[in-house]
Amino acid sequence: MTKNESPLFDRVALIGVGLIGASLGLVMKREGLAGHVVGCARSQATLDKALELGIVDEAVADPAAAVKDADLVMLCTPVGAFAAAAAAMAEHLKPGAIVSDVGSVKQAVIADLTPLLPEGVHLVPGHPIAGTEHSGPQAGFADLFKGRWCILTPPEGADAGAVEKLSHLWTRAGMEVEIMDAEHHDVVLAVTSHLPHLIAYTIVGTAFDLEESIMPEVFKFAAGGFRDFTRIAASDPVMWRDIFLKNSDAVLDMLSCFTADLDTLKHAIRQGDGKTLEDLFTRTRAIRKGVVEAHQD
Amino acid sequence: MTKNESPLFDRVALIGVGLIGASLGLVMKREGLAGHVVGCARSQATLDKALELGIVDEAVADPAAAVKDADLVMLCTPVGAFAAAAAAMAEHLKPGAIVSDVGSVKQAVIADLTPLLPEGVHLVPGHPIAGTEHSGPQAGFADLFKGRWCILTPPEGADAGAVEKLSHLWTRAGMEVEIMDAEHHDVVLAVTSHLPHLIAYTIVGTAFDLEESIMPEVFKFAAGGFRDFTRIAASDPVMWRDIFLKNSDAVLDMLSCFTADLDTLKHAIRQGDGKTLEDLFTRTRAIRKGVVEAHQD
Repeated sequence: MTKNESPLFDRVALIGVGLIGASLGLVMKREGLAGHVVGCARSQATLDKALELGIVDEAVADPAAAVKDADLVMLCTPVGAFAAAAAAMAEHLKPGAIVSDVGSVKQAVIADLTPLLPEGVHLVPGHPIAGTEHSGPQAGFADLFKGRWCILTPPEGADAGAVEKLSHLWTRAGMEVEIMDAEHHDVVLAVTSHLPHLIAYTIVGTAFDLEESIMPEVFKFAAGGFRDFTRIAASDPVMWRDIFLKNSDAVLDMLSCFTADLDTLKHAIRQGDGKTLEDLFTRTRAIRKGVVEAHQD
Repeated sequence: MTKNESPLFDRVALIGVGLIGASLGLVMKREGLAGHVVGCARSQATLDKALELGIVDEAVADPAAAVKDADLVMLCTPVGAFAAAAAAMAEHLKPGAIVSDVGSVKQAVIADLTPLLPEGVHLVPGHPIAGTEHSGPQAGFADLFKGRWCILTPPEGADAGAVEKLSHLWTRAGMEVEIMDAEHHDVVLAVTSHLPHLIAYTIVGTAFDLEESIMPEVFKFAAGGFRDFTRIAASDPVMWRDIFLKNSDAVLDMLSCFTADLDTLKHAIRQGDGKTLEDLFTRTRAIRKGVVEAHQD
């Protein structure tokens, strides 16, 4: 921000200052996008840390106090906590305020928030697809979003100006912004993110339940593939619990397809049917090419 | 190798010069571990490439010719091709020659090779746990093995000198060498490598079978977790077909545990049982810590 440029938002409330909230706070500082940033969290230690790291200008535990006069309220807690936060802050929201979020599920967020928000407040749900396996304000960094996608899922009739401002915010964070229908978002993310996480959590848990004598060797020889799963399965437990509960339909649908496919492979291995295995592995290799060509690796 | 030092092996035959064989050839050149390296492959294009890249000193298509006078014969093809290669070369092996391999399965390799090799030839199976998703001689690089583990599974009564020489070879490639029972190897690798690959192949295949309209978005938003699976599922199709067929018992055992665990999670999601999910995700996060502490990431 130069002296002549006014910030995109005069006052921003970050409800939740974990990995994503803290990273967004740092982006807003770096880019001069907010006049004043208030961080809100239940834990005093988190609030102290966020202040100490210069992520927020002010830190409060009460959502009602945090959103007072805010032009943008960004929900950055696990999605399961959105409804309670919205209920606590609803009547303190400024008319014309934008309420957005960073949750990985979008239909449930719209269903949870819409009935709670007063008229004249603009709901523009969003999902910056970025993260690491670390949690908390100290895990945040401004470059987290760089080169990644942010999906916005404004409900029908959403305020165009509010959508525009959010697009601008995430673009300044280094993201490419895509507008999408919430239902479609939830299906696509069930495939690209939710099911992979569920599978990774499961397999790491399976290894954990083996005889104890094998565990040190599982750690030692993790480089053969398991390592990548352990990184995914180290993601925030509460955040992921909420994602699976809030996007259960799409996740369970994908899971059914997956288990049917896994049964086919199990059968092929049992029957010594190498052709089925080789055919699939040749197809999946081609998909990797698609991911690399889409510059997602 | 200095002029005063004689190489570890006067003559080495690499049966197969794909990613691993080529990388080992480059290590032997760099470290001066072999007086003369003969590469053997079925495809003339592969042989030409291996010669052109300076991976081997000589390239022949016939395993019998390749192993003539060799002190070390290293099988670097997919494990399903070991028996045919051994049958073709067995009577041409020099007395006292060491036969080893780089396969990801060890019991089946011992079972396949032992009856074929003549007396006086030393079988020392091995498994350098290293790789990328790329194949072929042009994918090879000498640093592939650096900092990784190599497991040797010498059968009872194996020649101590031969085991020592192979340990030295892989140590010079930058690996830490561990001696292990073949059966134990196959169980540990089923957990850390074979099951993760099977799961990754499956989930990428599941995505592939979705409506075509979703695929471009699956590529686009792959960074949410799917990306890591596509990399694993881009590994060599024939190599992995053979691994699953040759280690089917251990893989199917682990797969049973995995599917039972997955059923538990499916049930928890369906029931809205957040506690079961959060408890597991908290445990798996601790496992990641174990992997990081074992310096495998």
